[in-house]
Amino acid sequence: MKSNGDVHECQGGVTLPRGFTAGGVYCGIRKAKKDLAIIRSDRPSRVAAVFTQNRTLAAPILVDKVQLQRSSLCSAVIINSGNANACTGERGLNDAWEMVRTAAHGLGIPEEQVIVSSTGVIGQYMPMDKVLAGIRELIPLVNESGGQSAAEAIMTTDTYKKEAAVQFTLGRTVVRIGGMAKGSGMIAPNMATMLAFITTDAVIDHRMLQKALHCANRKSFNRITVDGDMSTNDMALVLANGVANNEPFGEHSEEFQLFSSALEYVMIKLAKMIARDGEGATKLIEVYVKGASTEQEAEVVARSVANSNLVKTAMHGNDANWGRIMAAVGYSGAPVDPGIVEIRINNLPVLNKGYEIVLDEQKTAAALAREQVLITIELNRGHEKVRFWTCDLTKEYVHINASYRS
Amino acid sequence: MKSNGDVHECQGGVTLPRGFTAGGVYCGIRKAKKDLAIIRSDRPSRVAAVFTQNRTLAAPILVDKVQLQRSSLCSAVIINSGNANACTGERGLNDAWEMVRTAAHGLGIPEEQVIVSSTGVIGQYMPMDKVLAGIRELIPLVNESGGQSAAEAIMTTDTYKKEAAVQFTLGRTVVRIGGMAKGSGMIAPNMATMLAFITTDAVIDHRMLQKALHCANRKSFNRITVDGDMSTNDMALVLANGVANNEPFGEHSEEFQLFSSALEYVMIKLAKMIARDGEGATKLIEVYVKGASTEQEAEVVARSVANSNLVKTAMHGNDANWGRIMAAVGYSGAPVDPGIVEIRINNLPVLNKGYEIVLDEQKTAAALAREQVLITIELNRGHEKVRFWTCDLTKEYVHINASYRS
Repeated sequence: MKSNGDVHECQGGVTLPRGFTAGGVYCGIRKAKKDLAIIRSDRPSRVAAVFTQNRTLAAPILVDKVQLQRSSLCSAVIINSGNANACTGERGLNDAWEMVRTAAHGLGIPEEQVIVSSTGVIGQYMPMDKVLAGIRELIPLVNESGGQSAAEAIMTTDTYKKEAAVQFTLGRTVVRIGGMAKGSGMIAPNMATMLAFITTDAVIDHRMLQKALHCANRKSFNRITVDGDMSTNDMALVLANGVANNEPFGEHSEEFQLFSSALEYVMIKLAKMIARDGEGATKLIEVYVKGASTEQEAEVVARSVANSNLVKTAMHGNDANWGRIMAAVGYSGAPVDPGIVEIRINNLPVLNKGYEIVLDEQKTAAALAREQVLITIELNRGHEKVRFWTCDLTKEYVHINASYRS
Repeated sequence: MKSNGDVHECQGGVTLPRGFTAGGVYCGIRKAKKDLAIIRSDRPSRVAAVFTQNRTLAAPILVDKVQLQRSSLCSAVIINSGNANACTGERGLNDAWEMVRTAAHGLGIPEEQVIVSSTGVIGQYMPMDKVLAGIRELIPLVNESGGQSAAEAIMTTDTYKKEAAVQFTLGRTVVRIGGMAKGSGMIAPNMATMLAFITTDAVIDHRMLQKALHCANRKSFNRITVDGDMSTNDMALVLANGVANNEPFGEHSEEFQLFSSALEYVMIKLAKMIARDGEGATKLIEVYVKGASTEQEAEVVARSVANSNLVKTAMHGNDANWGRIMAAVGYSGAPVDPGIVEIRINNLPVLNKGYEIVLDEQKTAAALAREQVLITIELNRGHEKVRFWTCDLTKEYVHINASYRS
């Protein structure tokens, strides 16, 4: 979709919306890769966020929860990769606060308007001298075309940067939403999300911004999985600085619907990029469950199939091993009737009702050789449907994760 | 434990208990590997069973559920590997029934006393001419030392046969329990179990046999995972033929306790063999969760850690990446307090309360290089504990499962 109704896709990321600057530098946490990013809002932005539901919470998440209670405005986000600052106790908390203070001081903004975020190895202390020097070095470099540099700096085992942006019209005002994300490993069900930072120049009420984020998150970052492991550091953040100066709109307006669907579009695009770039992945797999009696039922089935190591290895091997899909449907916990389930792979019929096997092995293997795989599962129980994204499971995933810390 | 109190471990499997014969042959379902087994009880045995909780049920499971309602006695079990006879509809059901009838006729026993079991690829029809010819060929070959041959015939991607047996004294009578199992892939939480067949010559009441199986199953086969994928064909079966002629005992007797613990011993041993021989595995990983407030809480945490692809790849790489363990503890759903959790790896302290990191990287890496890894997680919330078994996740797992059907 380059243009869905009134929402137009654009090049760019967090600095596409007006009034935002950003940048990224190498400060020495990682080996020879940018590892520190800042997003800056010229005016204080309204801010909405969702966080990981993991009980093992990283220090920056704990700090941000306090920050969001202190203020509903945010003027800067400071993000590092290479170290998650998780399971680091008091010292980790102090370090995260010091990152906040240093950024606030350097940028000349109130402390409570700084959000901090970290991603990387769990259980190691932050190299604070490098980090603080990096923040001071980065601040003067932040600019209006720095979105790409920031997107590079938040990558860990990601193989490409993840940016998405759209433009649309609210009333007579052009409004933009831009975002960046990082993913790769520890991408999992029930998370709030991975790291994702979204900016918009729209004028929007704080409560409505949070509502739009919550809804879009449920259909995007909460519907991807790489390995079923939920991170300690996940967060998605939206900053709305109001620079576009559109007329304010209400919760039941068309404008809010349009804004929400534009936000959802950006977040789904980032989510799919994360799934496709899962550690070691060679394919994006979309699991499309339809004919469910409730949306939740559809999601439970989709998540079960998307998390199945056996389905993911079969897809890697271009093997239309639909029996594994049926097994994952069966153990999902949803009250499905396997005898009426139908399966298609890349739109080729594989299984009809009553276990009628209609698989054409050669055609399906050829279709599976593509980089995108669509598994359609018709439950024949109702009208609800859900799309869920994952990637194949490869030897490279094992290779990366058997040696990640070293 | 070669001898735990009064329970003594023995060589052998299902034909160690008196009055049982068995055998295995190659009938042509698989490529050049024994693929058909029979266990025969001279006298009709009392039978107890547990089945997979997957809603996608294989044909033999559906048949066996009917059989167990028809009769609480069993005189023979017929098992094939290479084809799961799952998702095969009416035709699959007819095929399973025909296997039952052919075995019953050939052995001269009532039809309702035959149990059938299949394991292998899902969604393919059984090559019935080969299977029926195989049954007829196998029947005269079944004998008192055929347990090993049967254990070989039920293997799929298993790399070794799985047998366990014990001997103990009930009253003044020596009683034996022997078992065999197959595992490898699609080994998962919430299953009833993988294929496991256990025989005993003990005299034991039918209801008590089922109770003992149920309890032992909960602590053995339900506490292993290879890949989190629950099979469509799992079952565990115990046959008790009473040939030992021990005095009958009641449910609250010491004898029942002894029998139950002996059964549990055999089943845990088989379960650990299955975990160690998970597809592509190089290590057995035991997750020992203690200090939980309830047994269920301990199990939830253990299962979460044991199912974590990231923990399993780290163990493969001899990497004491305890942060991944803490992440899996945190997203398990159990109401733990990560700040008071302690972790040891192969008895070396890694993390103390309050996120005090006491990991000695070199020592721990050396300890991890062993074929057995013990991850101890102290929750410091109570006194309940659970042991759970899994294996490492390797490139070989991906290799096997990207090409399993071909």
